[in-house]
Amino acid sequence: MKNILIIGCGLLGSSVLRSIHKNKLANKIFIYERSKKNISTLKKLKLPGKVVSSLKEAVTKSNFIIFCTPMSEYKNIITKINNYILPNTLITDVGSSKIESSKIIKKYLKKGIAWTSSHPIAGSEVSGPQHGKSNMFEGRWCILIKEKNTIKKNLNFLKKFWEKIGSKVTIMSPEKHDKIFSITSHLPHLIAYNLVKSAQDFEKKQSYDLIKFSAGGLRDFSRIAASNEIMWRDIFFNNNKNISNAIDLFIKNLKSFKSDINSKNNKSIINKLIQTKKVRSKIIKLKQDINKPDFGRS
Amino acid sequence: MKNILIIGCGLLGSSVLRSIHKNKLANKIFIYERSKKNISTLKKLKLPGKVVSSLKEAVTKSNFIIFCTPMSEYKNIITKINNYILPNTLITDVGSSKIESSKIIKKYLKKGIAWTSSHPIAGSEVSGPQHGKSNMFEGRWCILIKEKNTIKKNLNFLKKFWEKIGSKVTIMSPEKHDKIFSITSHLPHLIAYNLVKSAQDFEKKQSYDLIKFSAGGLRDFSRIAASNEIMWRDIFFNNNKNISNAIDLFIKNLKSFKSDINSKNNKSIINKLIQTKKVRSKIIKLKQDINKPDFGRS
Repeated sequence: MKNILIIGCGLLGSSVLRSIHKNKLANKIFIYERSKKNISTLKKLKLPGKVVSSLKEAVTKSNFIIFCTPMSEYKNIITKINNYILPNTLITDVGSSKIESSKIIKKYLKKGIAWTSSHPIAGSEVSGPQHGKSNMFEGRWCILIKEKNTIKKNLNFLKKFWEKIGSKVTIMSPEKHDKIFSITSHLPHLIAYNLVKSAQDFEKKQSYDLIKFSAGGLRDFSRIAASNEIMWRDIFFNNNKNISNAIDLFIKNLKSFKSDINSKNNKSIINKLIQTKKVRSKIIKLKQDINKPDFGRS
Repeated sequence: MKNILIIGCGLLGSSVLRSIHKNKLANKIFIYERSKKNISTLKKLKLPGKVVSSLKEAVTKSNFIIFCTPMSEYKNIITKINNYILPNTLITDVGSSKIESSKIIKKYLKKGIAWTSSHPIAGSEVSGPQHGKSNMFEGRWCILIKEKNTIKKNLNFLKKFWEKIGSKVTIMSPEKHDKIFSITSHLPHLIAYNLVKSAQDFEKKQSYDLIKFSAGGLRDFSRIAASNEIMWRDIFFNNNKNISNAIDLFIKNLKSFKSDINSKNNKSIINKLIQTKKVRSKIIKLKQDINKPDFGRS
């Protein structure tokens, strides 16, 4: 049994905390959190684990560290923990993009310390430890990142860890990960933000009350577009090349739709509208569907 | 009490049918439906109303006609019913765009017959009478269209009709309607289709299994992108000018996001990501929110 340190205890960190506690996976749990608001919430909710104010105490006593902060915090925290970290400590994180953070880790983390990265496909548009759940990861995919220097023992440990809290685990390279999620997650979120932004611009120009009639589609995009801005800025910045390519492909296709619509090209548009149904059938076949859309939030 | 004819009895038509029956709003209900599959479903489900094979019989006996077909069918059906229609008959429809269908109606409908258009904000990505519901319109907005020649008595009748089946009613011009819904509904649906199309293109190029990891966002767009292709083609073609403007605004904003991402413009992107949250707060305040996103499908 390991002593576990969770760094950053918001929505995901507190869900990891709850899951570890529920499944009795740690000897001791330490929590390092900088937000006073989050600390007060943790105490009010009487969540398990010991909140520490100094990284030194927690890092020297822990042999498994889970980064649950925004990715832009990694560098800063790594340089702090380098002084205390024990040689056999395993580090993981739950960040949503992998190439850039891998570079930061390689550049700043003390040599000889193992960091094997995780990406549990779970989350919500709400933030803070009050929204965490002990079943957040149950039945969800968790991607483990395998690089040249990844130690098999660590991958196996992490695989078991995520499986114990209910996840299905799969392993891939950071390059493959960042490409796949640029399309299945990052672009969809960016599109949602962009749609709401466009609606706001439209509303300002027209002074129409759009929100009242938002139930026809806009409303649900607005839910996604309320997600944590720091987390998403970090994802967009870190995976910028893949997202940029995805945006280009998206705009190319949107212009083709626009051309079909303006030239009333029946054959071309019907072909497009029918093709997209096939993805839906595949999702249902793969049992990736749920009763109601929730953008991965259930 | 009126004799009501429902033309087109798929998802929406059968929901209107069920609602009228449940609330005892008709003396007799006639159903005109061309699809043999739908007719057989109506019979199997023992839904109320008399399915007629000739428009002549139903039209001459009805004083309230509700068009629930795709908008591209209006012209054809109008020219057929012109021969039988009684002077005091009121016609409405449930189409999702209004300017183009108003032109068709003005051009082809027999002079002196009143057509006052409705747009209930309800629907689903599934099609066919088996998916209709008697509470489809409860608590939902229904837009009534007021034009120069709209007769107040007809507007009042329709207002009461939709309210009796549970809708909240508001009245606006076809121009305002088509502008508002180009942003709140038509663009969101087009974006969903386009995102799924882009994911398919990406998958073909990369041979990655995207669907497996679609829960992070793509999955829920795929639900919308499974909506009826004829209905949506008609909406996109009929409201092409407004949708085209909406696409241009959307692409302009998306390029600005792309530029922020590639130049890592922190201030500009954070500003955008925070701004969009305000729409969400407004929606919650206006009680337009529901527990889970459903793209207007509940």
